Amino acid sequence: MKPAEQNDVPASGVEKAAIIGTGRALLRDISLPAAVVYQRPLAHNIAWMQSFAERHGARLAPHGKTTMTPALFRRQLEAGAWGITLATATQCMAAFEHGVTRLLMANQLVGAANMALVAELITRGAEFHCVVDSVENVQALDGFFAARGLRLQVMIELGVEGGRCGVRNDGELETLLAALEQSSALVLSGIEGYEGIIGGQTPIADVRAYGARLVDTLMRLKRSAAFSADKPVVTASGSKWFDLIAEAFDRADLRGQYIPLLRPGCYVVHDHKLYAGAMEEVKERHADLQGELLPALEVFAHVQSLPEPGLAIVALGKRDIGCDPDLPMPQCLYREGQAPQDVRGWGVRMIMDQHLFLSVPAGETLAVGDIISFGTSHPCLTFDKWRQVLLVDEALDVVEVMPTRF
Amino acid sequence: MKPAEQNDVPASGVEKAAIIGTGRALLRDISLPAAVVYQRPLAHNIAWMQSFAERHGARLAPHGKTTMTPALFRRQLEAGAWGITLATATQCMAAFEHGVTRLLMANQLVGAANMALVAELITRGAEFHCVVDSVENVQALDGFFAARGLRLQVMIELGVEGGRCGVRNDGELETLLAALEQSSALVLSGIEGYEGIIGGQTPIADVRAYGARLVDTLMRLKRSAAFSADKPVVTASGSKWFDLIAEAFDRADLRGQYIPLLRPGCYVVHDHKLYAGAMEEVKERHADLQGELLPALEVFAHVQSLPEPGLAIVALGKRDIGCDPDLPMPQCLYREGQAPQDVRGWGVRMIMDQHLFLSVPAGETLAVGDIISFGTSHPCLTFDKWRQVLLVDEALDVVEVMPTRF
Repeated sequence: MKPAEQNDVPASGVEKAAIIGTGRALLRDISLPAAVVYQRPLAHNIAWMQSFAERHGARLAPHGKTTMTPALFRRQLEAGAWGITLATATQCMAAFEHGVTRLLMANQLVGAANMALVAELITRGAEFHCVVDSVENVQALDGFFAARGLRLQVMIELGVEGGRCGVRNDGELETLLAALEQSSALVLSGIEGYEGIIGGQTPIADVRAYGARLVDTLMRLKRSAAFSADKPVVTASGSKWFDLIAEAFDRADLRGQYIPLLRPGCYVVHDHKLYAGAMEEVKERHADLQGELLPALEVFAHVQSLPEPGLAIVALGKRDIGCDPDLPMPQCLYREGQAPQDVRGWGVRMIMDQHLFLSVPAGETLAVGDIISFGTSHPCLTFDKWRQVLLVDEALDVVEVMPTRF
Repeated sequence: MKPAEQNDVPASGVEKAAIIGTGRALLRDISLPAAVVYQRPLAHNIAWMQSFAERHGARLAPHGKTTMTPALFRRQLEAGAWGITLATATQCMAAFEHGVTRLLMANQLVGAANMALVAELITRGAEFHCVVDSVENVQALDGFFAARGLRLQVMIELGVEGGRCGVRNDGELETLLAALEQSSALVLSGIEGYEGIIGGQTPIADVRAYGARLVDTLMRLKRSAAFSADKPVVTASGSKWFDLIAEAFDRADLRGQYIPLLRPGCYVVHDHKLYAGAMEEVKERHADLQGELLPALEVFAHVQSLPEPGLAIVALGKRDIGCDPDLPMPQCLYREGQAPQDVRGWGVRMIMDQHLFLSVPAGETLAVGDIISFGTSHPCLTFDKWRQVLLVDEALDVVEVMPTRF
């Protein structure tokens, strides 16, 4: 992989803040609403998850689709990540153009224009892997890449009944393997899965069993010399059950025989509800866990109108912050000349494209121009609202403007 | 206003398609998913709404927040629009930098950094109007703009009880007028409202009454010489009840005394459900209506995996298409060498960040690599997913790449 210092990720520099204001102070100089990442929790989360993976003998390929922020990819790689996971060919190209040279596209590669993007990536020196789950797709990929004299590394996706993509059973797996053997351009580099889609009555047990199935399948194929590399990859894990997958991949009897690869994405900025709850469950499963992930992403916005008692209209909408699966959550109230006030627990009635309806508790007062920070549930759907997110220090000064590349 | 031909909106040019593919054919050369605007329905909608407004003696200030696409703003202005409505100061700056010189910000202007953006707009020659609904805000604006020797045109927002922003009654209105009289920098240019928030048991009657209240208030203030201009503005209208507002503003006895200004946004590409339904209601209210709005926005995506009978996973997610208030709706299936197939009515089970779960009806077959177009309900939340939308002709060739400026 290209050394991190050669990456063409934009360097730190508040000079770009000029496009949204004239100074560095978030509460004074920056046009709100603005998406804000807190420097210390961000650094903590990156180090925490890297350390968690290492304690399980695993590597990290953080899912980049969460943030699509090259300045964050660079930090994740510098901390020791194996590579970056992406969801689409265009995301892979965006990451590569910002210095990410080892790419795992955790999806089927479909469509000639997308294949052409990947061919360009490979030609330009990227180490690229995608996943396959059908003979049709294997044949299409083989035709495309063989015609160009290129080799394409693919991982077989193992799915679960009622789940998303991936072969469902050994019969389908064998058929797919036969198609891969027939291909001339495709190279099998690992086994891939995604446990986040598992539901049902016993998800914890099912996720553990799924993780074990991924490893068992990998080892079975390894014994039959299905992989080109000496150490093939086994990979899964979203941000909810990363601990279960890490444990399933951490087989003392098999250490050194494969690369266990975890792909959480949301951990990098964590959140205030969905993954905060998942973190509590991780802690319950691991009484000895050191530290935990911290929420690092908030959106700051002004109180815009106070039209009726108990109601504030905030200049913050669906255009600015994710509302799925939960409405934004007020965190802190900032008013000039006053100490910040904790407003967690204040209720949000509804949100429109550009307006949020905030319930003001009896006895509390707001003024037009007050600033409120909001937390989110599921950070992915906040990042994609922004062309840049602002990295701030503890004084709420902007220390870096981080462009997104959606 | 700056003549349209001087606008620095990017000119038509498929050369930019090179960044996402190597040719012009949507189904062959373009990386999917892609957001697509159909050329003819787009042109039809722009002309239709312009004509509708003119028949009611009204002007149009289409809400630009829907698309934030300068190439569409240009078309709307060229068709005769008075100006463009925006929601935020940064949106106004983006529009101005792409040639829109008459801007109506249909929101309160709050925060020093946002005021500084507007001061820059005014200094650079924009005709800018925003709305006010509180003494606090009037005083903050007056302090900011007076200190810079600038005048700021404002409209008073009239709200409804239980609604969004805006003064609720005559007492609040009088207090606000007194504050405006005290100001030195603020110039009252009109009366503003938004009827889209009206609910309750009798919305049609309530919207009509609200439209009448806006006009009555305007005329009362005009008689008391509250406006600087000879013809002040009265403005309201989203995309649902634009006909009711147009009628309420179309007072034969008052023609020529004010500028009635309609602000629908979604009409420009219309949709497949929310506003399609609203259009049916408009037609029911106006048996003599000529023509109607047509859906002009779809998102095209590949079938990525066919893991189980009856289930297709499409490479289309919440990152690509709006899902609020309704899930995407399949429209047409494209397979190489076959005639396009109408698939309206096929069911969508769920959507994740990057995947859509499509139910395949019994007896129908799909192949990995098939392309399906999807319609939306409420177009605003699809545009904001894209840095560019593709204008296509009837052969599905890309004729223009239109950047968005969110």
